[in-house]
Amino acid sequence: VPTVPPEPFEPPIAAVSPDPAIVDLLGALAYGELSAFDRLSADARLAPAMDGRVVLSRQAVLEFGHYQALAERLTELGVDPHAAMAPFVAALDEFHALTSPSNWLECLVKAYVGDGLAADFYREVAEFVDPATRELILRALADTGGSGAFAVREVRAAIAENPVWRGRLALWGRRLVGEALSQTQHVLAERDSLVGLLMSGTGDVASVHALTTRITDQHSIRMADLGLE
Amino acid sequence: VPTVPPEPFEPPIAAVSPDPAIVDLLGALAYGELSAFDRLSADARLAPAMDGRVVLSRQAVLEFGHYQALAERLTELGVDPHAAMAPFVAALDEFHALTSPSNWLECLVKAYVGDGLAADFYREVAEFVDPATRELILRALADTGGSGAFAVREVRAAIAENPVWRGRLALWGRRLVGEALSQTQHVLAERDSLVGLLMSGTGDVASVHALTTRITDQHSIRMADLGLE
Repeated sequence: VPTVPPEPFEPPIAAVSPDPAIVDLLGALAYGELSAFDRLSADARLAPAMDGRVVLSRQAVLEFGHYQALAERLTELGVDPHAAMAPFVAALDEFHALTSPSNWLECLVKAYVGDGLAADFYREVAEFVDPATRELILRALADTGGSGAFAVREVRAAIAENPVWRGRLALWGRRLVGEALSQTQHVLAERDSLVGLLMSGTGDVASVHALTTRITDQHSIRMADLGLE
Repeated sequence: VPTVPPEPFEPPIAAVSPDPAIVDLLGALAYGELSAFDRLSADARLAPAMDGRVVLSRQAVLEFGHYQALAERLTELGVDPHAAMAPFVAALDEFHALTSPSNWLECLVKAYVGDGLAADFYREVAEFVDPATRELILRALADTGGSGAFAVREVRAAIAENPVWRGRLALWGRRLVGEALSQTQHVLAERDSLVGLLMSGTGDVASVHALTTRITDQHSIRMADLGLE
């Protein structure tokens, strides 16, 4: 199927060319949000009842709003959002392909844990960037849509009813964080700009290690919220 | 994270119980929007490039916004939105199952033609209802997100490049309107309230026929926009 390049991208005239690391960061976050929209809207179809379907769909819609804000920021910087996202499509698609939920409880754990991991990562990197970009990132974090409380309630109820879920979902949660870290490493191996941002932001390798530890600690707290640790 | 009991539905105290026909109408429209969100977000994945994926995803997000407005209105009327939608789930799911696009151009034609049919139907029935409901319905129609222009451009370009698409997609468009009318008839056969609304709104059978003719005429105009008639 042929496509026309509609609306050719016309960058506004930027006073200075943007920092490649910021472009990479915004591109990675933007495709993260767009693919989260895509996966959450698909996962919503596994809901056993209308309330769960609506909750996950609403989370998908919020993620799309974050994508739009990030894409607008890239455009303001004179960068085509699609070009900025392109280097990160493979890694994020691979993450989602490797963590495709096979049932509704896996969907809920992924929505809760995945959203939480992304939010923690955002908060950490927001410290390394210019104030305008930071404000954009933190604003995107502010609206959560209440799906977290729903996931906690449903997962805890499922475990209470059938304790076998505890072990299964705990394993699933570990797989999610493992694949997320693995794909992050693949991305960093190819994007020197992001490694530079991380190193200059944290200061040294020990600080990068500390950042990773903070993120995995927060992950453990979320798993405990769900009754999984 | 502490868990909260699931927010059981608590209807506000309504001065008068709502008209069952209005509840049915809002319920049908609400599930129409929720299922449109669901299908458009799935169809977006067939896009050959990022721009088309974003356009269809954005349309899905707008449909979800309409769903939310309709669900809020039902809640204001003291009605559980999920209960109001329930009678219409089977017919709308059946419509989408019978019109699942097998390629990107079919997705675009369905998004354009389906959205247009729904909008025309909304405009017609908005004439039969109370001013508050009418305003809500017409407001939902106001934001279209620009996916129409995208569909027109892409479908016309595809036909220009390979004229065989014209016949194929014209057939597809006829199938879409046929299945939409067929499922509408199934719904009306089971919902006397909606037949009553339609009859009292239009006045007589001849006027119902005229309404159907106006909607199919508009459909023909849209097919011509796409270069398909």
